Amino acid sequence: MNTPMIKYLLGYLLKTEGLLMLLPCLVAIIYQEKEGFYYLFGATLCALVGFMISRRKPSNTVFYLKEGCIITSLSWILMSLFGCLPFFLSGEIPNFVDAMFETVSGFTTTGASILSDVEALSHCALFWRSFTHWIGGMGVLVFILAIMPMTNGSSMNLMKAESPGPSVGKLVPKIRSTARILYLIYLVMTIIQIILLIVGRMPAFDAVTISLGTAGTGGFGIKNDSMASYSSYVQWVVTIFMILFGVNFNAYYLILIKNIKSIFSLEEVRYYFYIVIGAIGIIFVHLLQTATSAFRALTDASFQVASIISTTGYATTDFDQWSGTCKTVLVLLMFTGACAGSTAGGMKVSRITILVKSIYKELHSYIHPKSVHHIKMEGKKIDDEVSRGANAYLATFIIIFAASVFLVSFEDYDFVTNFTAVATAINNVGPGLALVGPTCNFGFFTPFTKLVLIFDMLAGRLELFPLLLLFHPALWKDAISNKKKKKNSF
Amino acid sequence: MNTPMIKYLLGYLLKTEGLLMLLPCLVAIIYQEKEGFYYLFGATLCALVGFMISRRKPSNTVFYLKEGCIITSLSWILMSLFGCLPFFLSGEIPNFVDAMFETVSGFTTTGASILSDVEALSHCALFWRSFTHWIGGMGVLVFILAIMPMTNGSSMNLMKAESPGPSVGKLVPKIRSTARILYLIYLVMTIIQIILLIVGRMPAFDAVTISLGTAGTGGFGIKNDSMASYSSYVQWVVTIFMILFGVNFNAYYLILIKNIKSIFSLEEVRYYFYIVIGAIGIIFVHLLQTATSAFRALTDASFQVASIISTTGYATTDFDQWSGTCKTVLVLLMFTGACAGSTAGGMKVSRITILVKSIYKELHSYIHPKSVHHIKMEGKKIDDEVSRGANAYLATFIIIFAASVFLVSFEDYDFVTNFTAVATAINNVGPGLALVGPTCNFGFFTPFTKLVLIFDMLAGRLELFPLLLLFHPALWKDAISNKKKKKNSF
Repeated sequence: MNTPMIKYLLGYLLKTEGLLMLLPCLVAIIYQEKEGFYYLFGATLCALVGFMISRRKPSNTVFYLKEGCIITSLSWILMSLFGCLPFFLSGEIPNFVDAMFETVSGFTTTGASILSDVEALSHCALFWRSFTHWIGGMGVLVFILAIMPMTNGSSMNLMKAESPGPSVGKLVPKIRSTARILYLIYLVMTIIQIILLIVGRMPAFDAVTISLGTAGTGGFGIKNDSMASYSSYVQWVVTIFMILFGVNFNAYYLILIKNIKSIFSLEEVRYYFYIVIGAIGIIFVHLLQTATSAFRALTDASFQVASIISTTGYATTDFDQWSGTCKTVLVLLMFTGACAGSTAGGMKVSRITILVKSIYKELHSYIHPKSVHHIKMEGKKIDDEVSRGANAYLATFIIIFAASVFLVSFEDYDFVTNFTAVATAINNVGPGLALVGPTCNFGFFTPFTKLVLIFDMLAGRLELFPLLLLFHPALWKDAISNKKKKKNSF
Repeated sequence: MNTPMIKYLLGYLLKTEGLLMLLPCLVAIIYQEKEGFYYLFGATLCALVGFMISRRKPSNTVFYLKEGCIITSLSWILMSLFGCLPFFLSGEIPNFVDAMFETVSGFTTTGASILSDVEALSHCALFWRSFTHWIGGMGVLVFILAIMPMTNGSSMNLMKAESPGPSVGKLVPKIRSTARILYLIYLVMTIIQIILLIVGRMPAFDAVTISLGTAGTGGFGIKNDSMASYSSYVQWVVTIFMILFGVNFNAYYLILIKNIKSIFSLEEVRYYFYIVIGAIGIIFVHLLQTATSAFRALTDASFQVASIISTTGYATTDFDQWSGTCKTVLVLLMFTGACAGSTAGGMKVSRITILVKSIYKELHSYIHPKSVHHIKMEGKKIDDEVSRGANAYLATFIIIFAASVFLVSFEDYDFVTNFTAVATAINNVGPGLALVGPTCNFGFFTPFTKLVLIFDMLAGRLELFPLLLLFHPALWKDAISNKKKKKNSF
């Protein structure tokens, strides 16, 4: 195992986090808030520890998928541990597990909060919460890939471990350029949303934080009623951008180099839009019966469908009060998630497509046992490895899901609370139903349950395997034997 | 496609059903019930139609897995259509969809009922309900295999399609002998249970019907309170037999030819007992707080765990009133199910074991990408085909499950009702929670929802693929081109 390289990259990550933590300091200066000092302290600490760990540049910079996964999962854990310090030290979130929960929820773009009164937070804390969504959305390691020169093969192993979806494609031959293009699209789209919101007379601070949360498909609001008090214009802008940030970013690259039509040439994007339109239709028809106007029904239906399928989690209304049909549709959308290669969580439309096609293939093998039937996606043959990976993902997902529901059930709350709390955490959505509905928060759970949900949020964001790998005995055996070898060689 | 052979076997099946339907006639004679005439009519109709279809013995008796699946799924649909006639014609279940639901629920050993007052039924109807469990438990085609001479390869394709579990093993080289041994063990165990219940002063009719329902892990009761009014002795006997009928029947064969210890040599059986003991422990501790005595708590906990994991579905108490933890454990057990090669439904412990091991394998491939890691089960290497099958099963299960919850949700009941109604149907358990809890019934659903649940019960019992195959376009293309060829050859 290339431990020096792991250390080096973790140090680099902390230095980057220190740099990013200067932004909330800037916000504190604008609003003259003393909480800013804690962010400055956090930034300094990150930088210091970062420099200490990454002091020595490793002689061998090559690493494999194994190391890529370890770097990724350790990065996300470290980043959250350091990122929660300002919340905890400033006393804005006085309990450490709560502060950790909030930060993991931020970086993993879940948006589930333990706070009952977010409006009491300082501006810099609100900004940092939303900014963690933005950092976590595209991935901090992808960010590092964009700025750091690295051998192509090794950096691909980082990209594979951090990016969501069943298969990771490069837009251009060089990983570094790919990462830059992705971040550039991400940045430009966020800025467009901010401008559109400000045009709609939204206060600048609100426009920035809400846009950061939309871009990362996170969902931390800055008001206690999430998005309910904003104008319909604002709600529609956010709806559209939530849907857009759930689209595979490859589609945007295709638009840039080809034309706008090419977005629908991607199979996954087409299915994604079908699901969005279908779900809005069903919920719209149901809401019509009780809504004040058809426009209101359409706004709420579209907003909530966009919010849940993109796993953002903003709310314009308390959908826990909706009819059974609407709630069931929303729960199913939580699991679907949006497209691979977007900032959204969930299982991803492409993975579900692959699974459906593999079922078709299995049935085909009953009818024509000897013929070889290949699964195709986006017109290309899918590797057996990819479809095996999608299956292994589903099995792992179900088992982690069931185990988590079991552990959470020790609190003796109702089944809907247990089920949707885990569903919303592992799919990185945010609000669930019943006791964890859109008007509630996660603060009432015991620290044990919060730790289970923290694990689920990280597992969901990192798509299970990188995090699980940390618990594989063979890894530790390797690490220990490595250390022994090193000792013996002295 | 060997259509003559399909017809021949379906005819044979109907003749067998006609024969089996004479038993409720016998019950009607004993209790002097005029409803017996409808069973006599049903038996005659089955025999007549059976003879008509199977008039011509096919010249070519060889068939493949495809035909095996078609025969199996058509058999189960036909058997239910004819089996529900006495309920419908006698007016005891005046609605046809209801009668079909009750019969499918019987044959698939689900035990979910649309009746609110089962005590109002005639003895022959009660007997037929319980007897459908017994027939469906081991499988009617396995029964036919035991009595009909057939080429070994072809009959294996029937066995594969009807028997539950990821891989079907033969106990002895000949399928016919295997089927006979299985039915013999099944019969002897049922008789032992009947005797033990009669020894505990249970009325003979109750002892027979309850034992038939236990053996098939079905769960139709003959009292409105299911099993609550019986003595603790009776409840314990039923508990133990529910657990025993959830064990892989291969284990009993091992006991017969080796010794009693060999039952635990099977990995799956060991895990099954661990889960049973663990679940009883958790629920027992929770019930202690409210139960009248520790013995009562242990009895209820053991009975309900045995009933749900074996997917029988009897109840001694209204477990919908239990705490959130207990209810969540029961819902998880619904999905686990018992062992493959037993009469139980659910996913089966062995399939879950294979899935967990394949996750481990996937993780292993991250650490040692080039090493080949094989999954082992019962000490033997598992074929890639078997583990791919288990994965395809899971994917199919989840997709049918999600689609069904979606369709059932159109009724606008709460999420727990929708979720557990489908869970209990597809896993062939019987009672769910909330509106479909142990004190409720399925009668209030619309015919549409009942049809969805009928599909789920059949899909669950036949382990998805044989039933899905009927909907595969390639199959119909084959059938049509076959017919054309035949026409052209004249």
